[in-house]
Amino acid sequence: MSYTAPLKDMLFDIEHLARIDQVSQMPGFEDAGLETAQAVLEECAKLNEGVIAPLNFEGDKNPSSFKDGVVTTTPGFKDAFKQYAEGGWQGLQHPVDFGGQGLPKTIGAACGEILNSANMSFALCPLLTDGAIEALITAGSDELKAIYLEKLVSGQWTGTMNLTEPQAGSDLAAVRSRAEPQPDGSYKVFGTKIFITYGEHDMAENIVHLVLARVTGAPEGVKGISLFVVPKFLVNKAGTLGDRNDVHCVSIEHKMGIKASPTAVLQYGDHGGATAYLVGQENRGLEYMFIMMNAARYAVGVQGIAIAERAYQKAVGYAKDRVQSRPVDGSMSAAAPIIHHPDVKRMLMTMRASTEGCRAMASVAAAAYDAAHHHPDAEVRKQNAAFYEFLVPLVKGYSTEMSLEVTSLGVQVHGGMGFIEETGAAQYYRDAKILTIYEGTTAIQANDLVGRKTARDGGTGAKAIAAQIEKTEAELAKRDSANAKAVHQRLKAAREAFVDVVDFIAANTRSNPNAAFAGSVPYLMLAGNLMAGWQLARSLLVAEELSAKGQDVAFMQAKITTARFYADHILSRVPGTRDAIVDGADAVTALAIESF
Amino acid sequence: MSYTAPLKDMLFDIEHLARIDQVSQMPGFEDAGLETAQAVLEECAKLNEGVIAPLNFEGDKNPSSFKDGVVTTTPGFKDAFKQYAEGGWQGLQHPVDFGGQGLPKTIGAACGEILNSANMSFALCPLLTDGAIEALITAGSDELKAIYLEKLVSGQWTGTMNLTEPQAGSDLAAVRSRAEPQPDGSYKVFGTKIFITYGEHDMAENIVHLVLARVTGAPEGVKGISLFVVPKFLVNKAGTLGDRNDVHCVSIEHKMGIKASPTAVLQYGDHGGATAYLVGQENRGLEYMFIMMNAARYAVGVQGIAIAERAYQKAVGYAKDRVQSRPVDGSMSAAAPIIHHPDVKRMLMTMRASTEGCRAMASVAAAAYDAAHHHPDAEVRKQNAAFYEFLVPLVKGYSTEMSLEVTSLGVQVHGGMGFIEETGAAQYYRDAKILTIYEGTTAIQANDLVGRKTARDGGTGAKAIAAQIEKTEAELAKRDSANAKAVHQRLKAAREAFVDVVDFIAANTRSNPNAAFAGSVPYLMLAGNLMAGWQLARSLLVAEELSAKGQDVAFMQAKITTARFYADHILSRVPGTRDAIVDGADAVTALAIESF
Repeated sequence: MSYTAPLKDMLFDIEHLARIDQVSQMPGFEDAGLETAQAVLEECAKLNEGVIAPLNFEGDKNPSSFKDGVVTTTPGFKDAFKQYAEGGWQGLQHPVDFGGQGLPKTIGAACGEILNSANMSFALCPLLTDGAIEALITAGSDELKAIYLEKLVSGQWTGTMNLTEPQAGSDLAAVRSRAEPQPDGSYKVFGTKIFITYGEHDMAENIVHLVLARVTGAPEGVKGISLFVVPKFLVNKAGTLGDRNDVHCVSIEHKMGIKASPTAVLQYGDHGGATAYLVGQENRGLEYMFIMMNAARYAVGVQGIAIAERAYQKAVGYAKDRVQSRPVDGSMSAAAPIIHHPDVKRMLMTMRASTEGCRAMASVAAAAYDAAHHHPDAEVRKQNAAFYEFLVPLVKGYSTEMSLEVTSLGVQVHGGMGFIEETGAAQYYRDAKILTIYEGTTAIQANDLVGRKTARDGGTGAKAIAAQIEKTEAELAKRDSANAKAVHQRLKAAREAFVDVVDFIAANTRSNPNAAFAGSVPYLMLAGNLMAGWQLARSLLVAEELSAKGQDVAFMQAKITTARFYADHILSRVPGTRDAIVDGADAVTALAIESF
Repeated sequence: MSYTAPLKDMLFDIEHLARIDQVSQMPGFEDAGLETAQAVLEECAKLNEGVIAPLNFEGDKNPSSFKDGVVTTTPGFKDAFKQYAEGGWQGLQHPVDFGGQGLPKTIGAACGEILNSANMSFALCPLLTDGAIEALITAGSDELKAIYLEKLVSGQWTGTMNLTEPQAGSDLAAVRSRAEPQPDGSYKVFGTKIFITYGEHDMAENIVHLVLARVTGAPEGVKGISLFVVPKFLVNKAGTLGDRNDVHCVSIEHKMGIKASPTAVLQYGDHGGATAYLVGQENRGLEYMFIMMNAARYAVGVQGIAIAERAYQKAVGYAKDRVQSRPVDGSMSAAAPIIHHPDVKRMLMTMRASTEGCRAMASVAAAAYDAAHHHPDAEVRKQNAAFYEFLVPLVKGYSTEMSLEVTSLGVQVHGGMGFIEETGAAQYYRDAKILTIYEGTTAIQANDLVGRKTARDGGTGAKAIAAQIEKTEAELAKRDSANAKAVHQRLKAAREAFVDVVDFIAANTRSNPNAAFAGSVPYLMLAGNLMAGWQLARSLLVAEELSAKGQDVAFMQAKITTARFYADHILSRVPGTRDAIVDGADAVTALAIESF
């Protein structure tokens, strides 16, 4: 169950699709060129392959445990996290001012994939910490920043996101936790939060909870929610740890997957109130929380890619090793490794193409994020921000839904052995299922795509992306190869279907919201499919050129074949999905509730 | 986590699609009309809802355990199996001559679904016993029949199928277990069998293992495999139990799902040889085993439908109960049960339509089986046999692949709660994954579909079914409703795509087998999708008529909406799948093994 980071694929995307040469021209990223990317990724691979990946299966067998308010993580996790923190990995993308390395997301996202492939349960702790850092940087007072940021960036302390309550899952308007202002400017928080990832653990000295709660007298609904910092241990003026705060873990969940990652129920204020510090202004909590959420959503999309990659590697290993039956084409006279059977190849190619497609999409999205924040030209920043924001629900929703199919195929390639836990393929299948749920279910991503990202501007932004895709089509049209022609045909059909759907969504979201939202998740799947297929079409264009120049021919040919496979087998789903959205809305909503 | 058998849906299919009125005109089935079906299903529902279903979750929490060669099943299983046997359920479809009830498969299949919805792990024991009974009836000597059949049919003893060995999974040619002839006409069997479902347990007095092995000196490959009966306890002349035979359980597997069902490693002959009795003739074992396998494959398809139904019921219950967010259409001023949200409805409708479609297909297949065995006219028997045999890989392959999607949606509807094991939805997701693997993986079903069921007759049989579908299209064309028109359009497009693919498969299987088999699983999915969609189109025709007559209008309208949903959202996938098969073969096989 070893893991090898796919550095070559990652660097191909970073160089040719995300165009790190352009990123490294932006202020602050001068040193972040391709060589830096390669050096960082190699270092990252080393730690993850050697230290963190080997703990993944152990974490499933021997998960985090809870006793008397204390959570003990899987043996080895604490030490691995120490190495992770000491290596400076927590601070990779964070500002140099707070001890970070200030690298672009274009590089950071690939490191995130490596970490999550190695060990998704482990990776959740840094993932949530990143979110807490982002929120504090954006909205925290100078005092809060001074107290918390360096410790979080260094990995000495970790962070959490406290949104969910038993009655408030997708619906944050229903949050009931309350905050009472204190004379000294602090607050006392009371309430119960559930599903808090790494809400309690033994890997760091302190845990910094970012908590949504309502200040006494605040308005109903989402407009009355504020964001607070609630440290597990209070912090003295000198920065040393003080008293234990009134936030306590009362249990952790018994989950289907990501078992090593403790999912805590946290009780605030049972002994007089948990001391809390307001982040930013009162009643603007949701806005700040969205900063964490958006970073986290992108990161969860990367988790989908990461677990798909790990499942793919495992399946390839088994398929090359397991001997069973002769090839159907009579090419061998004895039983062969099952990778020689067409359907096994089809499964592996589906896993590979899906994973590479989503990775390419995420890599391009990361570059857009970097440009949105660092490009000197405001107009370019704006365009890139719009592009990135359109892609976030797709990276999150499509990559994670894709990971369900890929991890299922991963079990399938193993046959009966796949169903046996000791084999390890089943763990990826179980682990992956959380990805379409947390940080906003696929439906919540799709609502965002329909409402904020498509209908709000009448589909203009979406169509601007379609126009970019047409440019890739034009490039493909200039090529003579059968592969380019086939990919061109599928990409064009998919882009046209996308435009139809954008028109449908833009026309219906206000006038007939049931029709628009009946197609929301299919629209997300269609759009994600198209974006991934588009990026693979771009990778085919590059790979054909480089292959013709004799550069790394086998690798480039594999890129071409993978793009072709994606187009024929996955992008070809798009027109059917279009039909389901445009023609199928009535059938979604027609059945009376009583008839279910 | 209660379960209510969907009797009304089942009886609708049995009456209107499987046409039990025609089945009950066949010799031997005179008493098996609709009233019998209803009475039997009601009785079946009672036992399963009340006794067997409540043990399902417990079986997952407290699975079968192994110690010193002994397997102890989940508390309650033994007593439930006693009630199952005493109720005569094991003998439902078996001949009256051996103590069975001789009911048609048209009724038996529905009972099988109920049992598997109630408790799939439990149901595996009777499922395997059915297979052993079938094999003995078809190929056993009169002596073997006399000794074993009544005890198996009564449920006093249970049966197993022993095919797999560590090196012989899908590839039975690699079976190495050997059988040495003894002077008294019996054999001694030696070898290791793995993945033996209920290979050891405490629910019955004796276990009758049906075992594939090679007689000393037999030819290589599948032509040298014979089938043996190996009882756990030898049986004395008087029918009483004698000595313990030399077959021993050495361990059971630690699996992702169906945990209550013990999956045994059986060691034969470590203490001098396991006493074995030849079934039929030497070297014809595979042929007999296929009798068991075909019955079992159909039954596993029904397991897919069953677990999908259970997951659907659970998801509907949660969606009606869980309150979260206001409806998007502004129809309610407060947060509503989530079933009011379009995407939740879309998920539930997908689950419902998939399940109903596969159930309808399986029901029609069961009636074809009955006609193939009981119709007085040889030509009709032959036609029905061909139709049934075409459907078996689809019932097995498509219904089980569908169950993966449905159980995944089942978790998704529950949001974060779905990932918590105590909720129960995750169990269905974990349990279902075995269904696409055992009794022949989806790829093995697809090989059967491509080779024996399509290419062998040049696609003639497949096209005869397409011609039947055209008749349904003609009926739909006569209807004025928007629903009928929409379903007509999708069914026609799907049938045309099917014919294209049949031509492609027929043209390539011999000349370019890699191309044909690269599309084998997509072809299976396409064909299964079409068959299920066709049966739902037929159900729409019936439901429109009955609804117009004022008969059970809400139920009939739900049937119509479900058929429409299936057509728009699932059948609409077919043309894309056609493209992947016909245009996408090269991309499957192009990548060199070294490039994976």
